[in-house]
Amino acid sequence: MKTKSYFPKIGTIAYEGPRGENPLAFKHYNPEEIIDGRSMSEHLRFSIAYWHAFRGAGVDMFGAGSINRPWEKGKDPVSVAKMRMDAAFEFFQKIRAPFWCYHDRDIAPEGSTLAQTNKNLDALVAHAAQLQKATGIRLLWGTANLFGNPRYMCGGATNPDAHVFAYAAAQVKKAMDTTLALGGENYVFWGGREGYETLLNTNLKREQDHLAAFMHMAVDYAKQIGFTGQFLIEPKPKEPTKHQYDFDVASGIAFLRTYKLDKYFKFNIETNHATLAGHTFEHEIEVAASAGMLGSIDANTGDTLLGWDTDQFSTDVHGLTLAMISILRAGGLGKGGLNFDAKLRRPSIDIKDLFYAHIGGMDAYALAFKIARKILADGKLCQFVADRYASYDSGYGKDIEKRKIGFVELEKLVLTKLGEPKPRSGRQEYLENLIMQYVTNGA
Amino acid sequence: MKTKSYFPKIGTIAYEGPRGENPLAFKHYNPEEIIDGRSMSEHLRFSIAYWHAFRGAGVDMFGAGSINRPWEKGKDPVSVAKMRMDAAFEFFQKIRAPFWCYHDRDIAPEGSTLAQTNKNLDALVAHAAQLQKATGIRLLWGTANLFGNPRYMCGGATNPDAHVFAYAAAQVKKAMDTTLALGGENYVFWGGREGYETLLNTNLKREQDHLAAFMHMAVDYAKQIGFTGQFLIEPKPKEPTKHQYDFDVASGIAFLRTYKLDKYFKFNIETNHATLAGHTFEHEIEVAASAGMLGSIDANTGDTLLGWDTDQFSTDVHGLTLAMISILRAGGLGKGGLNFDAKLRRPSIDIKDLFYAHIGGMDAYALAFKIARKILADGKLCQFVADRYASYDSGYGKDIEKRKIGFVELEKLVLTKLGEPKPRSGRQEYLENLIMQYVTNGA
Amino acid sequence: MKTKSYFPKIGTIAYEGPRGENPLAFKHYNPEEIIDGRSMSEHLRFSIAYWHAFRGAGVDMFGAGSINRPWEKGKDPVSVAKMRMDAAFEFFQKIRAPFWCYHDRDIAPEGSTLAQTNKNLDALVAHAAQLQKATGIRLLWGTANLFGNPRYMCGGATNPDAHVFAYAAAQVKKAMDTTLALGGENYVFWGGREGYETLLNTNLKREQDHLAAFMHMAVDYAKQIGFTGQFLIEPKPKEPTKHQYDFDVASGIAFLRTYKLDKYFKFNIETNHATLAGHTFEHEIEVAASAGMLGSIDANTGDTLLGWDTDQFSTDVHGLTLAMISILRAGGLGKGGLNFDAKLRRPSIDIKDLFYAHIGGMDAYALAFKIARKILADGKLCQFVADRYASYDSGYGKDIEKRKIGFVELEKLVLTKLGEPKPRSGRQEYLENLIMQYVTNGA
Amino acid sequence: MKTKSYFPKIGTIAYEGPRGENPLAFKHYNPEEIIDGRSMSEHLRFSIAYWHAFRGAGVDMFGAGSINRPWEKGKDPVSVAKMRMDAAFEFFQKIRAPFWCYHDRDIAPEGSTLAQTNKNLDALVAHAAQLQKATGIRLLWGTANLFGNPRYMCGGATNPDAHVFAYAAAQVKKAMDTTLALGGENYVFWGGREGYETLLNTNLKREQDHLAAFMHMAVDYAKQIGFTGQFLIEPKPKEPTKHQYDFDVASGIAFLRTYKLDKYFKFNIETNHATLAGHTFEHEIEVAASAGMLGSIDANTGDTLLGWDTDQFSTDVHGLTLAMISILRAGGLGKGGLNFDAKLRRPSIDIKDLFYAHIGGMDAYALAFKIARKILADGKLCQFVADRYASYDSGYGKDIEKRKIGFVELEKLVLTKLGEPKPRSGRQEYLENLIMQYVTNGA
Ligand SMILES: [Co+2]
Ligand SMILES: [Co+2]
Ligand SMILES: [Co+2]
Ligand SMILES: [Co+2]
Ligand SMILES: [Co+2]
Ligand SMILES: [Co+2]
Ligand SMILES: [Co+2]
Ligand SMILES: [Co+2]
Repeated sequence: MKTKSYFPKIGTIAYEGPRGENPLAFKHYNPEEIIDGRSMSEHLRFSIAYWHAFRGAGVDMFGAGSINRPWEKGKDPVSVAKMRMDAAFEFFQKIRAPFWCYHDRDIAPEGSTLAQTNKNLDALVAHAAQLQKATGIRLLWGTANLFGNPRYMCGGATNPDAHVFAYAAAQVKKAMDTTLALGGENYVFWGGREGYETLLNTNLKREQDHLAAFMHMAVDYAKQIGFTGQFLIEPKPKEPTKHQYDFDVASGIAFLRTYKLDKYFKFNIETNHATLAGHTFEHEIEVAASAGMLGSIDANTGDTLLGWDTDQFSTDVHGLTLAMISILRAGGLGKGGLNFDAKLRRPSIDIKDLFYAHIGGMDAYALAFKIARKILADGKLCQFVADRYASYDSGYGKDIEKRKIGFVELEKLVLTKLGEPKPRSGRQEYLENLIMQYVTNGA
Repeated sequence: MKTKSYFPKIGTIAYEGPRGENPLAFKHYNPEEIIDGRSMSEHLRFSIAYWHAFRGAGVDMFGAGSINRPWEKGKDPVSVAKMRMDAAFEFFQKIRAPFWCYHDRDIAPEGSTLAQTNKNLDALVAHAAQLQKATGIRLLWGTANLFGNPRYMCGGATNPDAHVFAYAAAQVKKAMDTTLALGGENYVFWGGREGYETLLNTNLKREQDHLAAFMHMAVDYAKQIGFTGQFLIEPKPKEPTKHQYDFDVASGIAFLRTYKLDKYFKFNIETNHATLAGHTFEHEIEVAASAGMLGSIDANTGDTLLGWDTDQFSTDVHGLTLAMISILRAGGLGKGGLNFDAKLRRPSIDIKDLFYAHIGGMDAYALAFKIARKILADGKLCQFVADRYASYDSGYGKDIEKRKIGFVELEKLVLTKLGEPKPRSGRQEYLENLIMQYVTNGA
Repeated sequence: MKTKSYFPKIGTIAYEGPRGENPLAFKHYNPEEIIDGRSMSEHLRFSIAYWHAFRGAGVDMFGAGSINRPWEKGKDPVSVAKMRMDAAFEFFQKIRAPFWCYHDRDIAPEGSTLAQTNKNLDALVAHAAQLQKATGIRLLWGTANLFGNPRYMCGGATNPDAHVFAYAAAQVKKAMDTTLALGGENYVFWGGREGYETLLNTNLKREQDHLAAFMHMAVDYAKQIGFTGQFLIEPKPKEPTKHQYDFDVASGIAFLRTYKLDKYFKFNIETNHATLAGHTFEHEIEVAASAGMLGSIDANTGDTLLGWDTDQFSTDVHGLTLAMISILRAGGLGKGGLNFDAKLRRPSIDIKDLFYAHIGGMDAYALAFKIARKILADGKLCQFVADRYASYDSGYGKDIEKRKIGFVELEKLVLTKLGEPKPRSGRQEYLENLIMQYVTNGA
Repeated sequence: MKTKSYFPKIGTIAYEGPRGENPLAFKHYNPEEIIDGRSMSEHLRFSIAYWHAFRGAGVDMFGAGSINRPWEKGKDPVSVAKMRMDAAFEFFQKIRAPFWCYHDRDIAPEGSTLAQTNKNLDALVAHAAQLQKATGIRLLWGTANLFGNPRYMCGGATNPDAHVFAYAAAQVKKAMDTTLALGGENYVFWGGREGYETLLNTNLKREQDHLAAFMHMAVDYAKQIGFTGQFLIEPKPKEPTKHQYDFDVASGIAFLRTYKLDKYFKFNIETNHATLAGHTFEHEIEVAASAGMLGSIDANTGDTLLGWDTDQFSTDVHGLTLAMISILRAGGLGKGGLNFDAKLRRPSIDIKDLFYAHIGGMDAYALAFKIARKILADGKLCQFVADRYASYDSGYGKDIEKRKIGFVELEKLVLTKLGEPKPRSGRQEYLENLIMQYVTNGA
């Protein structure tokens, strides 16, 4: 199928340990390292985002693309797309990521009609199937791009024009088919244009009713084609919209429960989208986990001093350790994974930069995973938290949890027995020092 | 009961019309003006916030109180509290606000024990009852202060110490009794300390389970004492907490539906809390209205360039017009009202400033109300929106809303009949110009 | 020269007054209306931004262009550029804006070499000269685009590669020549890439030294070619950079005074850039005016709940009134003007939307201008402020201003005579109500 | 003088190394460790902030004080103040901080007159002098509190009432005397109220002229009393003001150069104030260092998801390493130091929490110092940056820096020789990985 190498000067990235001098080697991510009977690769389930790694051209709102790859040339867009996919799978192998993710429109060009577009997509999905088979690399999730083409400028499922709703339905139907064909473990819904530019021309309730109708159609269609992958909603508060409906995890839960969809969906949580919505990354993980809806992670970081989605690779081991504590405490990501929804900085124009970026992101998460495991294994943090709520494990505290007591009894208890409570320190600085010690002492 | 005047130099505020020169007169709020058979006073249901207007001393995080009122002296705190309440009701009358709101601890000092505290509260509630009777001023809503006393530093209903939960239960029980005694039309829950300072010492799920248990106790107790007022949750994203659980309306809906509380609660939406959570004021109104949960409004404004709750009086008629459009379209506030949860700027230390502030706030809302009515009456805006979604009123669009069509049929429709949709302008600038014309042309 | 109409269905926009029903007519901007002996057109000096109005295609970071104009086709880019410019000047006339602004790369395509590029530019500058002559429309300012082409991805004057510095110098030299040729009244420097993506690879001091060297070269070259237009620095805090050196007006003043450039430069202040830097629009105007450096205005608005440059048209007459008060108090904009650096929303795809947007922006500024004049003419606001500082007009207050008194004397004064000062209210609410009354009562 | 121990259960904090289990021991800060001939204590010059550590009562805008210390009782405020100072100096010794900082009003209560206030201050300054002598602990800097007392509600030096300006002058005169008496190495000016609440009642230029007059008086008075300590301006963008004049370092430089004060002042840079102004901590350090104005550091951290000054202790070694790189590259802090302008979280109510907080802050900075030294010693980062600008070390690049070349020559160079520049990667991800490796591998 493909013999040509698109990254001739770079071999498979080796693990050389924390003191390694080679910038093109892992310092902490050792894919084969076995921990609790599973390899690091299986624990972390890293995935490469096709749209950033292989369609990102370094464009921004004030400048043309800065990144030109040698395979990005040729007259016939479908054959260019195949060459690009060959390069992509070579990269997936060399960076030793077990998974990849894609939007339909990342891998195959639109034709003049939907039929032509689907034909192009089929060609590239077949090509991907061969590459998956040849490399063993698996599809973490597929999704449909309902935000790029101007037809979606006023939304897909929430477009005021039912014709666009229908077009979006056809496109998602096809994307679910292809995701199933490629064995995708999840299917993601990011409503990039499902929101509004201004409330002046918007019927918010009617648009959310339509979004719910669309999601129910997707649930029904999944049953119809036997797609058993997880449905994941990826919240984002804004950008490109003025306001996106799935603002954050809690808004997503409100939507799902309001429209009786909660049984069918979990969440794909992206770090940069959490902070844009005013939450820490670990807050969104805890809220999803509390509802049993922690699905998967789009692993990147934003810049809290910048108000837009920078989608950078994170090298903040301290911050990622806090997130991994929440992920591991929730029982891990199951069929989800860590997808690097992150792009190179516009001036990082060389192919080497693509390797550096992913190596850094993978090392940061690998080390954070090891440190978080140690923190949870030592149990000091968890014991502190458990002790803090001990008063609810027995007596009237337990009755409160069991809903076996009310205001009247509790008032009596306070007036006759308990009196004034004695405030107890939250020990925040002590706990922050404890985490700092674990993080600075490393794995 | 009270003959002494605390505002000798200021009489009842008269309506002198838009060209009035007297800063101590209404320009747009004419309480007796009849519109559609109801007075402006009944339409707007203005309410004065006891905590800001009569317990606000101009303190901030970097400076001592700047505001000293003549009635704030005397040795016995309960008699000072009564004098203060006399002054308050004189102000409520002169500013011609039909309602007031209070926290339990606003009107009566804590004693050394809960029993003593309740005794003090009873004394002031009785005093309030007389003043309500004498003046005709009614209680929009009552609430409990579960955030001021250090016992609540780690939360009330979400405190890791069940003893504090019990104390909070006793306090809310009493606050509900007194709100009922004073004929309060609503009861508000603002979870100022129901959140966390750090996730390191927090079990988020367990604390939210406790909050739900607490709310169910309140629902049960309301039934027990025959309190038929509306229960309102007031969201706020943060401050004083690092993260408050009722972050915004959507998070509130997620909580209510998750714990089967949605039938018993609506929302009290504060402008400054909406913008602190990253939403426009009208967004939060639309989200609540979509769920049939629009309860009441805390009328103020923040400063979007400042990241804390400034609780200022709004004089932005343009912004309030957009909010009033959403409120009126949702059918108005019913038993809710417009409560000025707003405080004087620290340097606005004179009694006159207290009148200026409320006059400005009331005029701004009154004018915004009139302009919004005109916009809705003219129907241009609503017609535009209706036309925009017309494709869902018939044919496959209607089937989508009726859930009588799925992906397969829609795909077929697009492939065989509809083809590529034709993008239609959202006319945002046209609509913004339309609103500007209504606002600048006034009532 | 040109007979073809590119806006056949839209004639010159007429003034129809505040009650006008025609959305394609001015409600407040009456260009010929004479105020204090000068026409509204001369007072406001509106200018159209070529890059947004005629090169804006409705692209955003998540979607392709949504806007397709009929004149944007043809094989030879230079002839397409001429057709486009014909359309532009027809629009400038019909929207009755006396000025236009452009970047070199807005009007003429880059060739394969700088020589070819300059040739293309000369062709379009000649074309513009004819159109200016034929229509009477004048150039408010010209500038060079040192941010679009990837060669500037790491900066122009602050690029770590001296070769790029040289290229930028050549480009600005040409842009100054062409601005002079077209009678531009100002020349603008917006350092879109003059900042950094990360401090890790940056020598901040050395880059700012280079920026200063570049600016001195521009000053020298202006003398050399007899360009007497005003040099204007346009601050912006970030985007596309992580941090832009000209963060805000104060940072600009620090740079100019540090490198002895302050005599040669004023500021072009853009509303959205002010709010992105954490300042109100009027704050930046006051800071520039205090230093005698208020040059010109890029008239738009951002959205303080969105952290990126939305460049929208403002219809917030209240906010613009506060800005116009500062502009008029500073003596107006002199050779500057009000340039609509604002773009259509992506879904506003029709040509009519281009007219609606500019009509709204012009009406908002025209009304704000009239209201601000009235406020200043009435003098109530100015008198209040003057009275507030009266204690510095005489006695020891005056000595303070005259630097004729020091700590020792002032301490003695306080200890022996003055004692404890008496706080006086800042009357903020009273003043906010005063402004609200002027704004709501209109011109 | 004092024999009583206020921290009986806690001895002097020992250094127990990175693996130490005792939370009341240093893991990285070993005061006596000698590096390059100087002790860690001399390198880092840690200082304790009297106002947070010994006057912080855990108050916030929504709740009463949560922190009650045993020494905070007694009828006579001056004797309580002495007891408190005894406790403070015992803490300074046990936490092994070589320095302390104070505002005048931190250590001594105001009397009914300025004379009485000064008498109280003299008593406590004398007491401090004895404690400094007994313990060897030195004063890093003193300052005056011109923001707490309501007389300063509209500013001190920028108050519209010259009487308040005079009072502030008297207070700063006294504070400079006492700082000199206690051997303070710096004197700090934080303009907490030097800004405005609203521009409506403000003459911005006149207020900044008055601030400059005030600063010149301070410069003159320092000469008069022979105070040779460094004058430091501490920028902050807002809070408690709507807008503070010293917004950030650049605004400070603009003010100093505009009013010819630049020779007399450097900057005291606080982490949380930098991020509130929209800059990274290291950005503000680089800007001050570029102007030779890096004075001292207020060592804390904010929370970029919260819009107010949280003044927390930082345990983010990664972030502090970036800041220490900038500090060390600028030649260190000279007579400045690292002052922990940080307070306990409201629920951290035990005396142990006061030790935990400072231990964490000192360990984080000590480790960051060691890592930054290693990065600079290895030279990889500095070499990368030097190489990046190499084109300015010779040829036309050098002529640019030497101002020996202009637009005309550079254009000719590009047109005839240089042609199109070749973009070179900024290697951001490579450098971020390099820093991550140093930080995770530790000292
Ligand atoms: Co994502
Ligand atoms: Co993203
Ligand atoms: Co409120
Ligand atoms: Co509030
Ligand atoms: Co601009
Ligand atoms: Co802009
Ligand atoms: Co400080
Ligand atoms: Co601070």
